[in-house]
Amino acid sequence: MAKGNAFYAQSGGVTSVINASACGVIETARKHRDVIGRVYAGRNGILGALNEELIDTGKESARAIAALRQTPSGAFGSCRYKLKSLEENAREYQRLLDVFKAHNIRYFFYNGGGDSQDTANKVAQLGAAMDYPLTCIGVPKTVDNDLPFTDCCPGFGSVAKYVAVSTREAALDVASMCETSTKVFVLEVMGRHAGWIAAAAALAQETPGDAPHIILLPEVPFQQASFIRKVKKTVQQRGYCVIVVSEGAQYKDGTFLADAGGKDAFGHTQLGGVAPMVAELIKTKLGYKYHWAVADYLQRAARHIASATDVEQAYALGRAAVEFAVAGKNAVMPTIVRTSDKPYRWKIGEAKLSRVANVERKMPRSFISADGFGVTAAAKRYLAPLIAGEDYPPYKNGVPVYVTLKNQLVAKKLPVKW
Amino acid sequence: MAKGNAFYAQSGGVTSVINASACGVIETARKHRDVIGRVYAGRNGILGALNEELIDTGKESARAIAALRQTPSGAFGSCRYKLKSLEENAREYQRLLDVFKAHNIRYFFYNGGGDSQDTANKVAQLGAAMDYPLTCIGVPKTVDNDLPFTDCCPGFGSVAKYVAVSTREAALDVASMCETSTKVFVLEVMGRHAGWIAAAAALAQETPGDAPHIILLPEVPFQQASFIRKVKKTVQQRGYCVIVVSEGAQYKDGTFLADAGGKDAFGHTQLGGVAPMVAELIKTKLGYKYHWAVADYLQRAARHIASATDVEQAYALGRAAVEFAVAGKNAVMPTIVRTSDKPYRWKIGEAKLSRVANVERKMPRSFISADGFGVTAAAKRYLAPLIAGEDYPPYKNGVPVYVTLKNQLVAKKLPVKW
Repeated sequence: MAKGNAFYAQSGGVTSVINASACGVIETARKHRDVIGRVYAGRNGILGALNEELIDTGKESARAIAALRQTPSGAFGSCRYKLKSLEENAREYQRLLDVFKAHNIRYFFYNGGGDSQDTANKVAQLGAAMDYPLTCIGVPKTVDNDLPFTDCCPGFGSVAKYVAVSTREAALDVASMCETSTKVFVLEVMGRHAGWIAAAAALAQETPGDAPHIILLPEVPFQQASFIRKVKKTVQQRGYCVIVVSEGAQYKDGTFLADAGGKDAFGHTQLGGVAPMVAELIKTKLGYKYHWAVADYLQRAARHIASATDVEQAYALGRAAVEFAVAGKNAVMPTIVRTSDKPYRWKIGEAKLSRVANVERKMPRSFISADGFGVTAAAKRYLAPLIAGEDYPPYKNGVPVYVTLKNQLVAKKLPVKW
Repeated sequence: MAKGNAFYAQSGGVTSVINASACGVIETARKHRDVIGRVYAGRNGILGALNEELIDTGKESARAIAALRQTPSGAFGSCRYKLKSLEENAREYQRLLDVFKAHNIRYFFYNGGGDSQDTANKVAQLGAAMDYPLTCIGVPKTVDNDLPFTDCCPGFGSVAKYVAVSTREAALDVASMCETSTKVFVLEVMGRHAGWIAAAAALAQETPGDAPHIILLPEVPFQQASFIRKVKKTVQQRGYCVIVVSEGAQYKDGTFLADAGGKDAFGHTQLGGVAPMVAELIKTKLGYKYHWAVADYLQRAARHIASATDVEQAYALGRAAVEFAVAGKNAVMPTIVRTSDKPYRWKIGEAKLSRVANVERKMPRSFISADGFGVTAAAKRYLAPLIAGEDYPPYKNGVPVYVTLKNQLVAKKLPVKW
């Protein structure tokens, strides 16, 4: 392999373990200095390349890089930015090429979900089209767990664990109070198009009848009458009802429940908040006292309760990406291949970026219970190993120690305007 | 002391450590079998006494009782039920006396906040008025941290830790994304009348300028103009703004911000949800993209991230309550007395139930920053030791192991109707 520098960047919504992948990329690259010279991290994803804002990770100590493994969020900044096709925005690609050439960047590692793998794939095409030797490797990441070809996605296991633990804890609270107070608790979790995160709440169940009693998935069109019947029956049987709802829960016509036409004090349509909407619906129909929670960023940033499996896989995929590059692979993404459910065993596989980009993996029907309000044993078998193990960060003064890097930028070599 | 049985019950909103107090009460009573015969737990607080629904804790193994220390929520059920005065509802008191006599209950331990200590105090008066020898000891508990005479309240330290940790984590997330996406994050926390919980978010700060940038306390009347100015300035300086808001944040006239007149899809006034209200206000005035979270029960049930200090104190107060009773004390509540901030040292003190009942302790002015949007160094000195230390529950299959007791009821001796 020709020696060159590497560009690494984080893209899309961050997670509690994306920095563990960064740690895997940087630590592994440091072991291959004969091939990979410097590792530049893009400040705010691909924008760092476009704006020539390159963070010199060589300025960070081995200790700081190691601490990335235990630090949530995106240490170099992330972005929501999608490259157009080469035909549509040639200027943008020319700029990327100029920046790569100016800094002798020969390796491109892009850490993100479906949109980001599309970006990685386009950059790979750019290298080929412009006859510039560039090795492009995707590093999977998404709490939504919706990338194809990989058994799971780093970031998901930790959110799943957060949701399962929180559901178990909140359910105990409601059970204590239900005789004289709250009877219904609604927890809203992430998942705009796929119900993986909401489904993971089912791991809170130990014995039949345990909470969550109802899970509302985007994959199952919401039917008010049967939902209300189920809530009523659950409260009559158990004394209380715990509901976990995907932010993407929707009606048959694709309208989100959250777009229920509510207006706030300023007359604007209430955005988000499917939990209060569902809670209020129950109150209206059944009169039960309710509480609701919206976990939002708390769930995907919750490194304090990360899944050890997830952290390990996030690191391993970062490491594999560099090993793939060093081995001469190109335009691929390392994946997780499950070889056994129990005991849980996995290995690293690979998928072509061209096939990964922009494909969304939803929950299979076989994972959804017959009545649509829960998940099957098969789903739990799939989900359970992903939340296994705890990987606590160190603490100081009662709060976790998370690293903040120096993030020193490399001197620019190109015009700022382009 | 005359030998007799004990009644123990949990009252009001439960916490992640109220069962640690139960553990302290039961384990200590078991060491004093010469004085305390059986420990009956009320099913759903004082209602368990009124309904003669007495759980025989003697049926639980030492191991199950020990596991209470690591289990959130109220293992015996809790209630929101306030006894009227002896004059107003003599019938109710007569019933209590009948139940106590029927089961030879001579010790009464009531675990709760201000309202519950009022109940304990009334029961103490009952014993005296009816010439029935009854020893009444309160056991403090409330996430609101608003009981007087005690340095802090069990339950609070763990919520404080949850809020500090979650704020630090979510703030890192927002910081990663702010350049191209979310600029404002609003976290709503508990605290209807006192801002202790919101104030604890300040423990997420490590260096000046760290999140949370704004804390909205019920103690400080909300002023829209200065709030919006501060949000704008923070985003301009830092790139993003993290706000922690008490559910009880209010205007000068005492109206809650959450009662902002918003209507949901069903035309009902939107209940709760000050976080979305504040987020939408910012969007309207400044146009910033926002995210918001409402932690609700998740915060007070989060035993997985409990403060070791809090767990220890909850247990110690349960133990002290029994020791007080055995020592012949009556109509008192054990308290936490701080003897040193750094290193943190505390001991058990006591307060008369008659003085504790129905007094609410708000944040002192000296704990609130000059601009009203944060807390002072004195507040942090007070708060910091309360979140110190981790006390992780054991895990199985990726979720915490929490105990469910048998909760076997004692045979009734009295008519069900009374």
